[in-house]
Parts: sequence; C-alpha cells; structure tokens
Amino acid sequence: MNETTDRLKALQTQLIDHLSTEAKNIGETGPVNLYQPIEYTLNMGGKRLRPVMVLLANELFGGNPEDAMNAALAVEIFHNFTLLHDDIMDNADMRRNKPSVHKKYSENIAILSGDAMSIMAYRYLLKTKAARLNEIISLFTETAIEVCEGQQYDMDFENRLDVTVEEYLEMIRLKTAVLLACSFKMGALSANASNSDAENIYQFGINLGLAFQLQDDLLDCYADQDKFGKRIGGDIVANKKTFLLINAMELASEKLKPKLTDWLQQDSFDEQEKIAAVKAIYQETGVKEICEKAINDYYNKALISLEQIGIDENKKTILQLLAKSIMEREH
Amino acid sequence: MNETTDRLKALQTQLIDHLSTEAKNIGETGPVNLYQPIEYTLNMGGKRLRPVMVLLANELFGGNPEDAMNAALAVEIFHNFTLLHDDIMDNADMRRNKPSVHKKYSENIAILSGDAMSIMAYRYLLKTKAARLNEIISLFTETAIEVCEGQQYDMDFENRLDVTVEEYLEMIRLKTAVLLACSFKMGALSANASNSDAENIYQFGINLGLAFQLQDDLLDCYADQDKFGKRIGGDIVANKKTFLLINAMELASEKLKPKLTDWLQQDSFDEQEKIAAVKAIYQETGVKEICEKAINDYYNKALISLEQIGIDENKKTILQLLAKSIMEREH
Repeated sequence: MNETTDRLKALQTQLIDHLSTEAKNIGETGPVNLYQPIEYTLNMGGKRLRPVMVLLANELFGGNPEDAMNAALAVEIFHNFTLLHDDIMDNADMRRNKPSVHKKYSENIAILSGDAMSIMAYRYLLKTKAARLNEIISLFTETAIEVCEGQQYDMDFENRLDVTVEEYLEMIRLKTAVLLACSFKMGALSANASNSDAENIYQFGINLGLAFQLQDDLLDCYADQDKFGKRIGGDIVANKKTFLLINAMELASEKLKPKLTDWLQQDSFDEQEKIAAVKAIYQETGVKEICEKAINDYYNKALISLEQIGIDENKKTILQLLAKSIMEREH
Repeated sequence: MNETTDRLKALQTQLIDHLSTEAKNIGETGPVNLYQPIEYTLNMGGKRLRPVMVLLANELFGGNPEDAMNAALAVEIFHNFTLLHDDIMDNADMRRNKPSVHKKYSENIAILSGDAMSIMAYRYLLKTKAARLNEIISLFTETAIEVCEGQQYDMDFENRLDVTVEEYLEMIRLKTAVLLACSFKMGALSANASNSDAENIYQFGINLGLAFQLQDDLLDCYADQDKFGKRIGGDIVANKKTFLLINAMELASEKLKPKLTDWLQQDSFDEQEKIAAVKAIYQETGVKEICEKAINDYYNKALISLEQIGIDENKKTILQLLAKSIMEREH
C-alpha cells in the first residue's frame, strides 16, 4: 500500500509543479489586471483532485503521461474558474483562508479573469496530444455546460422550500460529480482506453462524486470541530438545502415540520440555538443515518464500476486508495 | 450590384433563421433561469455581422455552407456572451433598447448565463464538419483570449489619462478587430482555403475592424443626430478614452491641455456645455481630420489585403460591398 500512496503523492507533486510553472508564465506580456488574478487563483492551493484523476486514469490505461498533463491542467483551470465565479455569485469573501478574487481585486476583474480562465482551459486541452482529442474536447464541453446547469439549480434551490431528494441528487450530480467523472474519462481517452472502460471509470467518478458531496453535507453538520476546517453547522445557519435538510423536510411529522419551517424563515436568531434545534429535528427524523446509508450506497456503486474496469486488479488499488482518501477527509 | 446585395441579405436571413431556431431549442430540458436569459440575448437582434462573415468567406472559397453554419453560430453566441458580461462590467442598463440581462434577471444569472454561452460556442464549433476543425478551434480560442485582453485594457484605460495612440489601437485590435478577422478566417478554413488566402482575409478583417471602431469613435461625436441611434457626445460625457480624445490629449498645446484635463476631472457639469467645450478643443487640435485619415488608411489597407486574395475578382465584389456597408452605417 505504501508504494501506491507514494505514487499518488508523486502524481500530485508533478501536477502542482506544472501548474505553478504555468501560473508564472500565464500572460507574461498581456494585461496585468487580467493575468495576475489568474496566477493568484491558481496558486491558492487545494488538493488538485481533478487533474490527479486525469493523470491517474491515463497511467492506469497505459497512456503517455505527457499526453495527459495538458488535459489535467485544463480541468484544474476550469474548476478554479467555476470557484472564482461561484464566489462572486455566493458573495463569498474568503477562499482557502485567502481573500477571494472579487474581494482582493474587484468584481469586474473577477468576472473577466474567470472568463479568460474558462477559455484558457481550451487552450490547454488543444495542446493535448491524443488520437481522440475531439472526443476529449466534446466530453469536456458537455461537462462544463452541465456544471453551469448544476450551479443554476443550486442557486434556484436557495429560494425554494420544496426541493425534492431527487432534484437535489441531480443538482449535485451536475455541479460536482460530472467533473470528477469527466476527469477520469479524459485520462482514459488520452490513453485510448476502450469505450466500455472509459464509461466504467466515468461511472466510478459519478458515484464517487455523489458520495463525496453527501459526505460534505454530513461533515458540515457532524464533523469533529477540531479536525474540521470550517465552522460546524454553517449549512444550517445559511438554510442551505442539503441532503439532510431536504430529507428532514420530507420526513418531518405534522408536528415537527412547522418547527423546521419556522427556523428556516427566522431572520434573526442565535446561531448555536438554531443549529441545536435543527440538529434535534435531524435526530428525530433519522436523516443522519439516511445520509450515511446513501454515502455508503454510492461508494459501493463506485466500487462495483471499478470492478468492471478491464485492468489488472493490482492496478485498481490506487483508485481504491484515492476513493478512500477522498471519503476520509475531514475538510 | 443588386445581385450581390441580395446575396448578402440572403446569407443574413439564413443566419437569423438558424439562430432563432437554435435559441428556441437551447436548454429545452435544463434550468429555465440559465437558458431563458440566453434565448432572450440571442433574440435581441443585431446585424449578425460576424456570422455572416463566416458564411461569406466559406462561400467565396467554395466551401459547403452547411459546414460553416455551426462555426457561424459559435462566433455569434460568443460575441453575445461578451456583450452580456461587458454590460455587467460597464453597468449598462440597456442593450438594443431592451433591458440588459443583468437588469432584467439578476447579476448572478447574467454571470452564469454568459459562462454557459461561452462554452456553448464550443459546442457549436465542435459540430462543424471541416477537415481543419482543430485549426478552427485553436484560432477561435486564441481570439477569444485576445478579446478578454482587449476588454481588460479598455477597463484599465478608464482610470488613466496617459493612454497613447499606440496603446489605444492595440486595445481596439484586441477588443474588436480580431473577432471580425477570426470570423472571416474560420469561414476560409472551413472551405479549406490556402494558408495565404486565410491570412489575407484575416488581415482584411483586422484592418476593416480597426476602421470600423475608429468610425464608431467619430460617429459618437460627429454623426447626424437624426440618423444616429444614440445620443451624440456620449463618449465625451463619459470621458471615454477614444481615438479623438487620446489624440487631443497628445496634441493639445500648453494652454489647451489643462482645459481638457479640467473637463475630464469635473464631477458635475452641464452635459451640452462639456460636449461643446471638448469639441472646440477637438476642432483646434484637428483630431477629427486625423481620425478620418486613420479610418481611410485602415480601409485602404483592408482593400489591399482583399486584392491579394486569390479568388476571382467578381467574387470580391461582395466583400467590398460588405466593407462599404459597415463603414456607411450611421449607428
């Protein structure tokens, strides 16, 4: 297992090195106010999960790593573009303990730098040397549109109290899971994997992504505060429509439901009191267990997709390790 | 000449038909709040200059019009995306006598719909059936990044009084000319034109674009109010760094320059008085004539590039007509 862990770390280091070199060279001669925020964004850090997935899939299917690096950079730059624009839309002042771009520079600069990043993702994609480049670009394009759809549904949900579990799962599939799945599949395509393998690793990514996002909902409410990076209960305070809240709304008894709705409609409240009250309703409706079961189900579905991939069993260890490390994170 | 005019109109009609069908079908099943603003934007009207340029170049080089239509739609959707985001950045409430997207819907919706449009442009590009598709996508991508750079320079210039003529010309090349040039070249590439023809029609577009933008500066100040769609002198009121103003700043005498600077720094003023005073300085510095000469020079350069294109002379008539119609517009 140690060798596998080392390989995963090596891929991550390789990616981080490439990314920081690229960030430095971006727009050497262009307008500073366009390119400096992009460099700032790309140097903010993060686990670089998506590009590592591209490199990993390329490696597992016997591809040439150089062919996958540009696709990996493309997906990371695209992901950071979505975070940048999401921060404007969510009015989020901080990102990874640093001021978000629209706070550090200006909203106009954040809009335009993000626009440039989404196009620069294509510049990197086009540098990818793969026989199936057009398939890669098409997959990326359809995925990117899905991510926009997911973000729109997420914003729509803010103003609704009647979001169903099904709608919520579709939203997180679009907003989170498809880009993880696309990353794996891009790596597979860059290595010219078979169509069925490319599809299986895509499904592995979808199910892992759903498990990952539900885990996020769970941790926000039930993580160990010492290990958790953010404040526990932030989603409850912000009335965020999470898997927990939506299930609680669906399952709450005649007596409980007005209580929950009441908390959602309060304009001023004591935060700790609200968190405790909503968590008590979660307890009564049993939504923590429902969430844990759903995470487990998606995780197991991911492992089944993994089993179906036609590569040596020992090669799959690294994907299992990656999946495990994603699910074990506390932040 | 009548036949040529009819052909140009026919291409425009064909394009408008396709675009309105596409607008109707966009996002039939996706989130309404994402796709409705896109449909609204695409139905706002406009001369559809860029996509007509794609279709025209394809036709002149003997291409299959069906191959060029998707590239034409891509460039129009991209152009409308830039207008949408520019309107947020410029805080412009109206576009073509209708509320701009961020006013009609919301700023968040305008940001996200624009993001989706820029990616949808690639969806259309990828549908283009051309042997040189990757060249077309690369050209489009590099052009799109240049357009972002142009917009950034334009915003940078708002806060500067020392913009040079050279810097200004580079800004309008990036913000306006390259997309016109790219449209022509995409059409040429879709018809598999020779590299030198593709380059010549690109240069035709660049020079026409520069002439077009300088004409815009001139009209804003000197158009016939009855024929001009907007209020005369709007650029002067807003201190917009135009070719006229930048030249006036460079050429104004020791005595005149403080007067001009003073008007630029006034926070409250009578609009007509400011327009009259700045125009008097333009008169003294002779910048109207300098602008007219520059327009003429770029227009003639465009015609020289046109001469060098290796197609029948009678086929060039339609490009000459297009160039003329662009320069004769009063709005």
